[in-house]
Amino acid sequence: MSGPNYTSRRSRLLRAIKTAGVDALLLSGESNVRYLTGFTGDSTWLFLSKTATVLISDSRYETQIANECPGLDVDIRDARKPMSVAAADVVKKAKVRQLGFEADHLTVTQHSALHQKVESAELVSTTGLAERLREIKDKWELVQIREAIYQAERGIGVVRSSLRPDQTERDIRYTLEAAMRSFGATGPGFEPIVGVGPTGALPHAHAGDRLVSESPILLIDWGAEAPSGYRSDLTRVFVTGRITRQMRTVYETVLKAQKKAIAAIKPGAKCRSVDAIARRVISNAGFEKYFGHGLGHGFGLDIHESVRMSPISKQVLEPGMVVTVEPGIYLPGKFGVRIEDDILVTNTGHEVLTSVPREFDDAVVEFLA
Amino acid sequence: MSGPNYTSRRSRLLRAIKTAGVDALLLSGESNVRYLTGFTGDSTWLFLSKTATVLISDSRYETQIANECPGLDVDIRDARKPMSVAAADVVKKAKVRQLGFEADHLTVTQHSALHQKVESAELVSTTGLAERLREIKDKWELVQIREAIYQAERGIGVVRSSLRPDQTERDIRYTLEAAMRSFGATGPGFEPIVGVGPTGALPHAHAGDRLVSESPILLIDWGAEAPSGYRSDLTRVFVTGRITRQMRTVYETVLKAQKKAIAAIKPGAKCRSVDAIARRVISNAGFEKYFGHGLGHGFGLDIHESVRMSPISKQVLEPGMVVTVEPGIYLPGKFGVRIEDDILVTNTGHEVLTSVPREFDDAVVEFLA
Repeated sequence: MSGPNYTSRRSRLLRAIKTAGVDALLLSGESNVRYLTGFTGDSTWLFLSKTATVLISDSRYETQIANECPGLDVDIRDARKPMSVAAADVVKKAKVRQLGFEADHLTVTQHSALHQKVESAELVSTTGLAERLREIKDKWELVQIREAIYQAERGIGVVRSSLRPDQTERDIRYTLEAAMRSFGATGPGFEPIVGVGPTGALPHAHAGDRLVSESPILLIDWGAEAPSGYRSDLTRVFVTGRITRQMRTVYETVLKAQKKAIAAIKPGAKCRSVDAIARRVISNAGFEKYFGHGLGHGFGLDIHESVRMSPISKQVLEPGMVVTVEPGIYLPGKFGVRIEDDILVTNTGHEVLTSVPREFDDAVVEFLA
Repeated sequence: MSGPNYTSRRSRLLRAIKTAGVDALLLSGESNVRYLTGFTGDSTWLFLSKTATVLISDSRYETQIANECPGLDVDIRDARKPMSVAAADVVKKAKVRQLGFEADHLTVTQHSALHQKVESAELVSTTGLAERLREIKDKWELVQIREAIYQAERGIGVVRSSLRPDQTERDIRYTLEAAMRSFGATGPGFEPIVGVGPTGALPHAHAGDRLVSESPILLIDWGAEAPSGYRSDLTRVFVTGRITRQMRTVYETVLKAQKKAIAAIKPGAKCRSVDAIARRVISNAGFEKYFGHGLGHGFGLDIHESVRMSPISKQVLEPGMVVTVEPGIYLPGKFGVRIEDDILVTNTGHEVLTSVPREFDDAVVEFLA
């Protein structure tokens, strides 16, 4: 399969730029620049107008840009020239009057500097123009995401098959990362969360020194990063000992909430309605106050991308979107259960891209007594 | 050794806040929040005034904050309440009139939302208040940095002792990361750069498929992250085959530049003068245009921190600062040499914290012919 069509992506963005009422867009979001050019470094901005496409970078990246973005115009500033000055020169040369900037990817400091140096054009705040394009994954991107899912799923297979009561959360994290790499990942898609018992009740805990044997509930939230930069994002809970009735109830409630929410995923579904479906199941079981985050999110080059499925989201699902569905119940000081899969919105409904078994019986891992 | 004194750090910041002419500071920089409270998560802001210290977070982090920041006031917003609204409520309650924000750590979007919601106070842009404190490492921080250096140096020892001509850059990267972890690092301090020949000429290359045997020059830029979050940052070049006279000249030139620059490090030295010393050595050898980046930078919780040693820096070295010194010469399409050590500014001069040998003879690794 051939690589991504950057020219086509930039053409689509140019149409969005026109609709937004500006002549040109200055992109400072790292993943947006990568999506539109293939450049994998940082500290590099992209100027895009109908007549000019220029990467603004510095000498550290000169050769890398020539390799990764053949044919693209590049403005290499030297160490003494600030980015704002280099950008202003490009803007002036392109004779732009209304210059859009990315309000989500420009700090107040950067904006002030830009405002001071760009005298030839009016700065106009924009949000989400490139992110809107990135919501819909193209065929090449779906291949990358499937690859990152493959790496994550093979990785958790190794963890599961090598699980021992005397492993720490940290041991498991490192085993998982090495295993994903052995299947071709460049690394984890984000810092894996490995939580035994009470640690699993912290939705964003760091893997620490707790032993698997300290609780019958082990939560792992992990994903891989494929060489292309695309990621995957899953969560499973393993049952490694004798559990209480409450643990079983929580597990089954989360699973039911997840299944019902996934079943509702199709083009035209409101993100907040899908969130509400899962939330209602959890609420009906009496755990509403223990599910404090949104139901899921888009992902791709970043682990958190538009769209968001949460109670305050105003977005609607469309074919080509890939989202996580990850309800959870967290009982502070006791344990947490979250089950997370990756779902592609298709033309007629959805496809669950992930395939690690998730029924309660699948979660049980037996050790020698 | 007891942990960091967060109260004392906040007291010093309060004095800086007063000097900056504001009543309170709203901190949104993740490492700044960690430095001032010990909280290791994200999406959390810190409000600091003479009478109030409040972490503003959400339910995902409620328990973690209680564990990591005992005694600190916390405002937990629910998923429906935006951060800007939660912050505005805290500001109003504290009866602040002049509210400083961190212009380097607030996007234009976040600033607009804050501006809209905070009606009770005037927003005042500030930069570098917490970063200025972080420039000077305290005793506890130096212990952490020494630990991260130890992990990095033991790690490179494993890489060196296991080096083979048939290893790829990526193999070496993964060996290095696993080795650093075996000595207690939680991971690399940043994505390690492993570059064979021409790849080493890209100052920020990703480790790829090139084999050690493809060139006699191998560049590795790496560091560890200790469990406390503190990092180390080194670069060494290994000579793994028969080299040209030019390679030898480049190596010796970089080493000479580095040694001369390090020798000039002491309290009161101007950062740009130290940079100039290294740059002059490289320039005199005819390689000026092949050294496109600054000489070095501070590091700690972040891999790049204030101060910066570059031709445009206006900063001056002070006791307690820890900086890298890393001149380089990059010949596009051929090879690159960079040598990087970590230096502590002491009361009377400096101490080189790193100890991996760096003479040309030390760089040579022999394989069976």
